[in-house]
Amino acid sequence: MRPNLTPDLDLATHLSDALREAGFDGIGITRDAYGPGEARAHAMVRAAADAIGLETACDAAGNLLMTLPGLDRAAPVTVIGSHLDSVRHGGNDDGAAGVLAGLAAVSAMRRAGFVPARDIVVLAARAEESGSWFPTGFPGSRAALGTLPPAALAARRLDTGRTLAEHMAQEGFDPEAVRAGVCLLPPSRVAAYLELHIEQGPLLDAAALPVGIVTAIPGARRLRAARVVGEYNHSGATPRAYRRDAAIALAELAYRLDEAWGELEAAGHALVVTFCVLATAPEAGFTKIPGAAAFQLDVRSLAPDSIDAAYAALHRLAAEIERRRGVRFDFGEQLVSLPTPMSGEIQAALARAAGELAIPCRCMPSGGGHDAVAFAQAGVPAGMLFVRNQNGSHSPAEAMRAEDFAAAAAVVLRWAEQA
Amino acid sequence: MRPNLTPDLDLATHLSDALREAGFDGIGITRDAYGPGEARAHAMVRAAADAIGLETACDAAGNLLMTLPGLDRAAPVTVIGSHLDSVRHGGNDDGAAGVLAGLAAVSAMRRAGFVPARDIVVLAARAEESGSWFPTGFPGSRAALGTLPPAALAARRLDTGRTLAEHMAQEGFDPEAVRAGVCLLPPSRVAAYLELHIEQGPLLDAAALPVGIVTAIPGARRLRAARVVGEYNHSGATPRAYRRDAAIALAELAYRLDEAWGELEAAGHALVVTFCVLATAPEAGFTKIPGAAAFQLDVRSLAPDSIDAAYAALHRLAAEIERRRGVRFDFGEQLVSLPTPMSGEIQAALARAAGELAIPCRCMPSGGGHDAVAFAQAGVPAGMLFVRNQNGSHSPAEAMRAEDFAAAAAVVLRWAEQA
Repeated sequence: MRPNLTPDLDLATHLSDALREAGFDGIGITRDAYGPGEARAHAMVRAAADAIGLETACDAAGNLLMTLPGLDRAAPVTVIGSHLDSVRHGGNDDGAAGVLAGLAAVSAMRRAGFVPARDIVVLAARAEESGSWFPTGFPGSRAALGTLPPAALAARRLDTGRTLAEHMAQEGFDPEAVRAGVCLLPPSRVAAYLELHIEQGPLLDAAALPVGIVTAIPGARRLRAARVVGEYNHSGATPRAYRRDAAIALAELAYRLDEAWGELEAAGHALVVTFCVLATAPEAGFTKIPGAAAFQLDVRSLAPDSIDAAYAALHRLAAEIERRRGVRFDFGEQLVSLPTPMSGEIQAALARAAGELAIPCRCMPSGGGHDAVAFAQAGVPAGMLFVRNQNGSHSPAEAMRAEDFAAAAAVVLRWAEQA
Repeated sequence: MRPNLTPDLDLATHLSDALREAGFDGIGITRDAYGPGEARAHAMVRAAADAIGLETACDAAGNLLMTLPGLDRAAPVTVIGSHLDSVRHGGNDDGAAGVLAGLAAVSAMRRAGFVPARDIVVLAARAEESGSWFPTGFPGSRAALGTLPPAALAARRLDTGRTLAEHMAQEGFDPEAVRAGVCLLPPSRVAAYLELHIEQGPLLDAAALPVGIVTAIPGARRLRAARVVGEYNHSGATPRAYRRDAAIALAELAYRLDEAWGELEAAGHALVVTFCVLATAPEAGFTKIPGAAAFQLDVRSLAPDSIDAAYAALHRLAAEIERRRGVRFDFGEQLVSLPTPMSGEIQAALARAAGELAIPCRCMPSGGGHDAVAFAQAGVPAGMLFVRNQNGSHSPAEAMRAEDFAAAAAVVLRWAEQA
C-alpha cells in the first residue's frame, strides 16, 4: 500500500525566494564557495531543516547533512543532494534546486508521518562550481565521502588566491580532519545518491519535456592556462611577411578547431569543444600587432576516443600554424576527468516513478559535471534527474518553471519512498 | 662655398642617455602625454636648448619651440621636429630622436658660427602617441599650427579618463587659447617641416640601408571599440547547433579577414590589416560559451580604394557570420584619416643631401602616422627621414644604432643648411 505523498512545494518556493533575495548581487546570483554567499545559503537551509524537524549535522568540510530517520537506522542511507554555491553572476536554481527537492520530499514524508525504510539524508554540498571558485573537481562532495585527494586542499580560489584549506579554516571548518579522510558519508554507508539539477542546455525545452533521466556524465580534457606567443610590432609599419601575430594565430586555431569539431560530429562523434576564453594579452593595444594571447579550451564527451580525436586535431593545427606564422603555442597544464555512467538501476527506478506519475521524460546524457560524479566514482549507485530550464545556465537569465520543478520533485519523492 | 658642418652627436648622445634614464619605468620607456613623463623630457630638452643659446618658447598647448635665428628673421621659418612622448613601455628613440637630430643640427651651426638664411625652429611637439594616451590625431602639432579642431580638446586620456583640455590646464598650459587657435607656427609662417624618425618596421634593416626618405604617410580606417554579441551558455551542456558563440564568430572573422588581406596583396593592393585587440568579455570563464567579445581593427594604406576593399571584405564576412552563427557585430565608431604625400621637393632635396654625403638610402612609404601629417595637411611642405631600427617599435626592444642616427642627422643638417 503506497502513501499518497506530494512534495512540499510551499517550502521549496519560500526557501528558493529567500535564497534568491540573499544571493542577488545586482546582476545575478553570487554564492561564493567557502565565502559569505555560500555561508548565508547554508544557514538559511539549515534553519529550514530544523523547522521541519530533521537531524542536522555539518561535516569537517562544512557540508550540511539533514537527516530524516528511517525504520532501520543502521542501514546504509539514501542521499538526495546537490550544491548551494553558484557561479559569479549566475542563476538561483543551479545547485539549490536539488537541495530544495530533497527537503520538499522529506518534509512531505514528515508531515504525512511516513517513515522510510532507511535514513534519507538531504545533502547540501560545498564548492561544486569549480569554474568560478576552486579549480578542482567536487571538493565538497568528495570530502563528504572521505575521497578528497589531500592535494585538492591546496587549490587556490580563483579570485582570492587563498587555498581551499585556508578558506575552510576561515569558515570554521577543519581542513586537517578533511585531509585525514574524516567524513560522515563513507561510501560503504551510502546505499544510493540522487541529484536533481536544472538541465544546463536546451534539449528538454526543445523536446517539450519537463524531466530528463541522466544516463552518464561526460569526461573532459581542459586547458585552463594555454598561451600563444608571437612578437609585438608596429601595426602600421610591419608588412605581412614580417609578422608573428599571436592574435591571428589563435583566431586561426580556434576557427579551424571549431571546423574540425563539425567534421568529427558529422563522422559520428558526440562531443563539445569550447574556447571559453580567447584574449590578446593586456599589453595589446592600438598601433600594435599582438605579441601574446591566452586561451582556455574545454573538450567534453562520453567517449574518450572522441576527446582524443579533438586533441589530435588541436595538436596538428597548432604545429602547422606555428611553422607558418612563427608563433609558439604553450598549452599549459591539462586537466582530465573520466566519463561517469549513472546507475542503470536508478535510471530504471526513476523511469518507473515518472511513469507512475504520468510525467513525460526522456533519457539523456549530462553536458556538465555534477556532484553525482563524486558519488559514482566512489562506487555509490548514483542517479540524476534534469529539470527543463530556459535560457541556459550559469547566467542570470536561467529560468526553470515552477511546474517543471514540481514534476521533477514528485519523481524524486516517489523514488525516495521506495529507496 | 659650403661650410663643413657635422651634427653635434655628443649633445644628442648625452641628452638621449638622460632621457632614457628619466623615462625608464622598470620595463621600457614611458613618457605619458601631458603627464609627468613628457614634462620631465620637455624640461631636459629645454635646458639643453638654453645651454646651446637658442631662443626657447612654449606655446599655449605646451609645444616647445627652440629657435636658431636666421639672416632674415621676417622670413617663414624652417621647422625640424618630432614628439617627446612615448607609448607605455616603449623605446627611447621613437619621437625623441627627431628632436635630438634638430638640436644636433642647430648646435653644430651655432658652434661653427653658421647663420642660416631663415630661422630654424626645433620643435618638440606634445602628445603624438594617440594609441596610448589621447585618441585623437596629432593634438600637439596641430595646436602648434593652430589647426586643432576644438572637439579634440574633449578627447579623454585612455588611462586617466580626463580630457585633453583638463590635462593641458593641469600642466600649466592654456586650453582656451588653443581652442581659439592661438599659436606660434601658423602655416603661412612655416616654409618647410622636416621630421627624422626611427623606422617602425623592418624594411631598412632587411635592405641593409641606414636611411629612408619617406614618400607618403598612409591613411587609416580604424575601429577602436568594435564588439560581437552572442549568448552565454554552459560549455558542457549546449550542443553545437544551439550555440551563439561570440568568440568563435570573432575568430572566424579575424582569420578570414586576414586571408582576404593576403588575397588583396596578391591582387596588387598594398595595405596592412591588424586586429590589435581581440578578446572575450571579462564575464567569460570556464564552463561558459563566450557571449560577447571585443576587438580593435586597424587598416592602413596609401590607397583609399585598398582600405575600402578591406572594409568591403569585413562587412561581407561579418554579415555571413551573423547569419550562420546567430551573433551580431557592432563596429562602433570608425576613425578615418587620409593618406598624406610628402613634399616632392623635400624628397628630392633630401636625396641630394644624402648623395653629397655618400649615405645610401631609399625612398619608401611610412607605415605609421607622424606629426608630419599635421604639417602636410595644413599645407606646409613636409618631409621625413627614417632611420634604420632593429626589433620593431613601440617596444622596449627598439634599437636604433648610433651610426645610423649619425648618418641620418648628417642628412638633416646638410638639408637644413640650404633650407
